[in-house]
Parts: sequence; structure tokens; C-alpha cells
Amino acid sequence: MENLMGYLGPPGTFTEEAARSYDKNGTFLLRPYPAFDKVFSAITKKEIDQGVVPVENSLEGSVNLTFDLLSGNTDVKIKGELLCRIKHFLLTAPGQTLSKIKEVYSHPQALAQCRIFLDKLLPDASRINMSSTADAAALVAQSEGKAAIASQQAAEFYGLEILRENIQDEPFNITRFFILALVDAPQTGDDKTSLLIGLHDKPGSLFSALGILANYNLNLTKIESRPVRSELGKYIFFLDIEGHRKDKKVSQALKELKEKALFLKLLGSYPRATTPI
Amino acid sequence: MENLMGYLGPPGTFTEEAARSYDKNGTFLLRPYPAFDKVFSAITKKEIDQGVVPVENSLEGSVNLTFDLLSGNTDVKIKGELLCRIKHFLLTAPGQTLSKIKEVYSHPQALAQCRIFLDKLLPDASRINMSSTADAAALVAQSEGKAAIASQQAAEFYGLEILRENIQDEPFNITRFFILALVDAPQTGDDKTSLLIGLHDKPGSLFSALGILANYNLNLTKIESRPVRSELGKYIFFLDIEGHRKDKKVSQALKELKEKALFLKLLGSYPRATTPI
Repeated sequence: MENLMGYLGPPGTFTEEAARSYDKNGTFLLRPYPAFDKVFSAITKKEIDQGVVPVENSLEGSVNLTFDLLSGNTDVKIKGELLCRIKHFLLTAPGQTLSKIKEVYSHPQALAQCRIFLDKLLPDASRINMSSTADAAALVAQSEGKAAIASQQAAEFYGLEILRENIQDEPFNITRFFILALVDAPQTGDDKTSLLIGLHDKPGSLFSALGILANYNLNLTKIESRPVRSELGKYIFFLDIEGHRKDKKVSQALKELKEKALFLKLLGSYPRATTPI
Repeated sequence: MENLMGYLGPPGTFTEEAARSYDKNGTFLLRPYPAFDKVFSAITKKEIDQGVVPVENSLEGSVNLTFDLLSGNTDVKIKGELLCRIKHFLLTAPGQTLSKIKEVYSHPQALAQCRIFLDKLLPDASRINMSSTADAAALVAQSEGKAAIASQQAAEFYGLEILRENIQDEPFNITRFFILALVDAPQTGDDKTSLLIGLHDKPGSLFSALGILANYNLNLTKIESRPVRSELGKYIFFLDIEGHRKDKKVSQALKELKEKALFLKLLGSYPRATTPI
């Protein structure tokens, strides 16, 4: 059987680019899924071996959804992370020029990230929101006077011309992706561990939980609180710490943390990504 | 001159509902803006007196964008917060029935939040992503066999029939909104303060900063880390604490925090929202 890797589609989005970068040797067959939860259920049903979803600074959808799904009743674990530089391209159907563009289509975040470019070079063009950069690319492929902001991948997929490249306002726009599977990754010596803990909403409760990590000299690379919707007065915290759950000091800290928290769920340990691709 | 309140449009979204709820007495004229940054610049240019944007668990766009804009070079402050229960409605053009629906349109998060309902009652209908719930409502208004998941407000605005109400999987789906203006709010005795601090990315640095808040017995109601994109190895933290920046213990804690942090930016103090509307 062929190895299958799912990703949050449609084809031509930055998530497809991330999946291709992760699968450097091309050993996986890529399969797009239309929604975050479809990627999760495809892994659970073993339709695919692993799946790629955006996590932070994403263009194709909400970060929250990835964390909501991970925190729910699922067996899916994080087995990898990937950092990608997001480059935006101004794309049109063949034969268009900048002066002909009356409308620019893209995901709202992509439009926002190219605001300075648009204000300067296309001040009179309408900016129209789409649900993904790939949908914007598909739409402009059939029309004159319309441009899309999307990835280079989308230009190839939809046969578009690149009118301008690297049009994002910030030169370094990095999106983080998770690689998900039914088991997390083995120790490599340079790992991260993602977890969530539930705490009472009272002064000092987070401080005292973080004290455990400080005691073991574990660096916290991400923290995010989320109110528990069904129970006011309780909070969930998503934490990323450096180290693998099987490393001695990590496993000891997690044990102490579990005693202090209302609950603790391990989301997975995986090799730390350092350089964006 | 009439008082003007801007909000993240289009009309018919949950953000419009939130703006109407906040302006109980109808003293403001509401004006939709097509993007987060347009709301901010309208406040700065004094086109509007205040603006309403979603902050957490939003359907119309990214939370991140609100925080990115607040953390940037802006004079805009948070002067209020609002919690709204998000209720989803299945809407169609007049005269449709459930059995005729072949396609369901909405924002990806709204579709995800109604997954159980859709799996049960419309298992064979395609689910199609739109950039907002209001865009979905506008689209189905002109067609047969199509339904939108959107707000009650959208049903009224686009003249749609409500086929089913409260179709979200979780009974309590709460979205938080900020009311923004050029000045924050005066003390009421039950306030919150939002701020961001920059810290070195090393073990214990957050722990030691939170120790200051714990010392003053200040409750932390939100925390979120964000890497500083241009400078790897540094982190920004968004914090919400209970109390007003003019309260004695808050002002003392902020002073100590400022000494410890790489930088500190006050985003505003405002009355705490307790019950969702």
C-alpha cells in the first residue's frame, strides 16, 4: 500500500506547500481534505498515515480549530512541526497588467498582510475576501481585470501568471504547521512536547504550575489560555516545552504538573523545528 | 454630529449583532468596515468614535489580527469587552425544505461548529467554505437547494427563512469582542487591563514575570505567547489581568513588570464583562 499524507486543502494553499516540503523524498501520496476535522478523522480511520494542518499565523483557517480538535476526545498526536516562510504572489490570468486590475481576491489575512503593497500599487482596486488563497486563485483564472494573492504553488496549479512576487509587508512571515498521526515521534535529543492542562481560575495558579517547569529548567516556547466554555471559572492552558516526554526531567516535571492540575493531556513529543523552510 | 460606531462587516455578521447589543440605547449610527485594519484606521482618523472587533473564538476572521494591530504602532485602546453567545441558524431562500438542500454554505468555523447537526440531518449535502457567515447568507438568498449557516441578523438582513435554529453542537459558544477607541475606560471597581510584554526566551523568564502578579494577588484571565517574527529568541505575551491600571496594586505591579520586561505596552483598562448577552 502507498503511504498517504493528508493536508488541509484545497490544493494550491500554503498547507500543501508545507506538506510537500515535509515529504522531501516524495514517498507520500498527498491527499487534500476540505476541513480540519476531516484530517483528524482520516487519521483515526487510518485512511491516511499522517496529516498536515496549520497551527499558528495561518492563512487558511483558524489556529483555534487545530487546538480545539487536539484537546477533544481524539487519539491523534503531534509527531512533527514545520516552520514555513509564507511568500505572497500577485497572480492573474495570462496577459493581464497591473493597470488593468480592478479587483484583488484573497483570504482576509493575506489581504491584510499585503496592505502596504496594495495601498501603493493598487490603491483603487477593490479587495474582496475569499475563504482561502487557493479559492481566490481559482476564481481569477477565468477572468480579466482580477488578481489573486496566493502562493507560487497556486500559480502553477491554476496556470496563472505571476505579476509581482514577495508582496507581503513583512519580509519574514512564518507559519507553523503540525504533522499529525496516531503516534508521536521518538526521542532525538532536540525535541519539544505539547500538552494542555486545566487549572482553577484564581490568582497564582498558573504561576505555581509554571514554577514546576522553572524548577526543572525547562523552557516554555508557547503558552495560550482558553476559557473552558462549559465551566466558567476554569481555564485550559496549551503549553509547548522544550524536551521529549521520555526525557527524565520532562517526565518528572509532567508528573508533578499532573498532580497540581485539574487535568493534563499530552498532545505529543516531536523534533524541534529550528529553521523555517 | 452623530455618534458613529464602526464594526467588522459585512452587515449580518455576529460582529454587527455584538455592536447592536453594546449600543443598547441606539445612540450610535453603525458603520461596517471590510477589514480589521480599516476599523483601526477609522478610529485613528476620527471617522468613528469607537469600533467593535472580534477577539476570541471568532467566526469572521482571525483573533491574531486584532492582537497584531493592537501591538503595532497604534494609538487605539481597548475601552470595553463584550461576551456574546453565538447561535447558528440554518437559513434558506423562502420556500425551501430540508430535503431539497444539496449544499450548505458558511464560514469554515461555523460549519465545523455545526458538524453533528449536519452529519445527522444533511449527511449528503456538500459543505462549502465562505469568507463570512454573512457572505454565505447573501449567496443563498438567490438560489434554490442551498442553505447558509449564519446569524438571525443575517436572516433579517437578507430576507431568508429560518429552517432550523440553534444548530451548533455546543450549547454555549461564546465569542469575545473588544470595543476600541482613542481612550480607554475610567475605573468602575470591576475592571480588566490588557497589556503586552516582551521577554527573553529563556527558562523561567515568564515564571518570574508572573511572580509579580501573584505577589499582588492579581488574577490573570488570559495569557498568550507570540514569537517576535523579526527577532528570533524573543517572545511577546498578551496578558489580561483583573483590575484597572489606575488601581493602586495594578499600577504598582505594572511598574515592577516594566522593569523586568524588554518592553511593556498598555492596551487599555475597561469594565469586566461577566454575563454573555
